[in-house]
Amino acid sequence: MVEGVHFNLKWGTPDLLGARSLTVNLSDIAAMGGKPTACVVNLAIRPGLNRTFFDRLYRGLAKAATATGVDIVGGNITRADQLSITIALFGEVTGSPMLRENARPGDAIYVTGTVGDAALGLRLLSGKSRARGCTRKFLVDRFLSPTARIDAGRALARIRPTPAAIDMSDGLWQDLGHILERSRVGAEIDPALLPLSPAYRALAGTDVSYALGGGDDYELLFCMRSRMSEAALSRRLGVNVCRIGKIVSGDRATLVGTATADSVPRLQGWDQLRAHA
Amino acid sequence: MVEGVHFNLKWGTPDLLGARSLTVNLSDIAAMGGKPTACVVNLAIRPGLNRTFFDRLYRGLAKAATATGVDIVGGNITRADQLSITIALFGEVTGSPMLRENARPGDAIYVTGTVGDAALGLRLLSGKSRARGCTRKFLVDRFLSPTARIDAGRALARIRPTPAAIDMSDGLWQDLGHILERSRVGAEIDPALLPLSPAYRALAGTDVSYALGGGDDYELLFCMRSRMSEAALSRRLGVNVCRIGKIVSGDRATLVGTATADSVPRLQGWDQLRAHA
Repeated sequence: MVEGVHFNLKWGTPDLLGARSLTVNLSDIAAMGGKPTACVVNLAIRPGLNRTFFDRLYRGLAKAATATGVDIVGGNITRADQLSITIALFGEVTGSPMLRENARPGDAIYVTGTVGDAALGLRLLSGKSRARGCTRKFLVDRFLSPTARIDAGRALARIRPTPAAIDMSDGLWQDLGHILERSRVGAEIDPALLPLSPAYRALAGTDVSYALGGGDDYELLFCMRSRMSEAALSRRLGVNVCRIGKIVSGDRATLVGTATADSVPRLQGWDQLRAHA
Repeated sequence: MVEGVHFNLKWGTPDLLGARSLTVNLSDIAAMGGKPTACVVNLAIRPGLNRTFFDRLYRGLAKAATATGVDIVGGNITRADQLSITIALFGEVTGSPMLRENARPGDAIYVTGTVGDAALGLRLLSGKSRARGCTRKFLVDRFLSPTARIDAGRALARIRPTPAAIDMSDGLWQDLGHILERSRVGAEIDPALLPLSPAYRALAGTDVSYALGGGDDYELLFCMRSRMSEAALSRRLGVNVCRIGKIVSGDRATLVGTATADSVPRLQGWDQLRAHA
């Protein structure tokens, strides 16, 4: 995570930044059904930041590590022009990891939680949209304090046949694309089924472009043979789960159902090399 | 490794930079007597560098990985203002790792290879010193293409009692200090025993300040009960080894022998936060 690319110090506290820098890595482990164990942290520090800043950054990081059973076992500090935090996180999988190549035609496609909130939170933080009160707080929190779905991922990985899964860091559409590519399948997504939070609806109405194209939610997207209801699956995973479409043969994702093309103008997803700040 | 801090693209080829970025990590594994196994690579790329550059960088990295049995198993690419390469390297130790806390009074202190070459190479690259021909080439190569003493480290770790060891990245004096601190001991170093290369002597004469204070050699410094001759130890480790002093009780390092204070003006070693470029 690089200052000016992935975060801006004005957006939140150093504690939140420290926690988030681990969470985005925890999310990758969650998407494979793994148990995170230990990490090494590389901190590139720039002039103008004091000891208090780094104490708080580390406090947030350490708190997130403790909460998820992760040991911070080493790392490195270097000087640079830009502040950046690079974490390598280790995890263990018992049994079969969930792989992007596991999707098969006929699988249902699900997501955990709600989607698009973090993209709207980022718009609020960078002044591109405006909202107040609970709506603003909820969306901004979703960007600044994402939750890695570790327990849900581990519960998912126990299901047979092992689901395909990915965490949504670049956006639903783009991350789904990674599964399609690796599994050599296509997908049909019904935009009307996307789980949108009340805050999302308050700010963006029925425009699902942020839910499809916006990144940083760190919810899981997974594909599996469906035998359970959404309610039963939600209970099993400990988080709300929504079916949003299905895997089909082919090699591309298409939108089906009632949504019009007008409502989904930004389907390219997010690119890691595109600036956030 | 951060551009403008640890390296300058004018100094060498992208291939060498890629290889060196792994070697400095391999050296840490070597210093514990470990066998390197796998790494993850984080690349922060800045504008102005083309595909060819990154192909060559990766080629050098991959070549160094293959040569040492390391799998590049993952990583990340991000945008930044500065080019930087961050590697987390995994290694395995069978038996006891060599730890910095293992030094005991009475141990002899050894170094592998020659010391101070890389610091002089860096001076040549940055225009602070001048040399030509073989002298320049040798010293610059020692900075740009260091060798991680993996085999020597593994051979050392089989000796009982297990030696204390560290790789000299920050400089002999500073890295020795890490051992003294962790082992709660002192040291006596005889500057006349420091192994200086012919190229070192050609450029710096009898001034041992670069040998004591200069970093980036990535040779091993180790402390152990001495039963073998330097020649026998050199054969066992597969690299030339020199005894340079001994561990004593106390908590500080002192210079003993014939050297005058004038010849060792820079004993603070190198600091990770001090600029190289």
